[in-house]
Amino acid sequence: MSLDPNKIKEYNDHFVNLNGEVFAGLHYLIDMWNVKYDENQKYIRNLLVRASEAGKATVLKVHTHHFGEGHGISGLAVLAESHISIHTWPERHYIAFDIFMCGNTDPDLSLNFLKNELKPEKIKVKIIKRGLVKT
Amino acid sequence: MSLDPNKIKEYNDHFVNLNGEVFAGLHYLIDMWNVKYDENQKYIRNLLVRASEAGKATVLKVHTHHFGEGHGISGLAVLAESHISIHTWPERHYIAFDIFMCGNTDPDLSLNFLKNELKPEKIKVKIIKRGLVKT
Repeated sequence: MSLDPNKIKEYNDHFVNLNGEVFAGLHYLIDMWNVKYDENQKYIRNLLVRASEAGKATVLKVHTHHFGEGHGISGLAVLAESHISIHTWPERHYIAFDIFMCGNTDPDLSLNFLKNELKPEKIKVKIIKRGLVKT
Repeated sequence: MSLDPNKIKEYNDHFVNLNGEVFAGLHYLIDMWNVKYDENQKYIRNLLVRASEAGKATVLKVHTHHFGEGHGISGLAVLAESHISIHTWPERHYIAFDIFMCGNTDPDLSLNFLKNELKPEKIKVKIIKRGLVKT
């Protein structure tokens, strides 16, 4: 699913109208197992920036935290269009991503970037319309 | 649902076992409409800290961004146990929260705190088990 500006009508108040449904934005919950990545903060920071830019979002701030060798990294990017987050569990070969995007963005492109970059052996994606207004 | 330490067996690798299901943590997606709050960064920052502490989580870092008068605030708190986020759409009287908590925390207590504090006229909560391993 995408918030392709050619397909949506954006309200003055920043909610979007996609095929008659009015909502704040799309939230992707992405679980990945057995991915190829570097367990360090510089890599994670760059990954969040590249994933955001792939989805045509604007990064305002990135913060990462390393819990110590083998204990995972958390990273959060504040976007002009909401946020992207990552939490890694290296001992389980598991990574949790959230991509929450509103406005003229395309979270599908961020998801595709992450899949191409990380090549997960297993992936589970849930897509949720946040702030859905009954129409 | 809670990650009450009396009910769960925590693995050495930080995944939890709740009634035979093994997963990384609980992710609450909370949509609220018509809430009582102050649209300023100091209030939002304190709200995130108090919600985190209510759920027995440890706050490592909080960042907020104000998009300008009437255009909403975003806030992200990095926790030792994942994250809490908020995005406000004041023109729609809508707020989106995420509470993603692992470890010995209780996101139900964070949710209850937010409901008591903000008194939403309407609320929608989705609870998702992140990183669920087939058992």
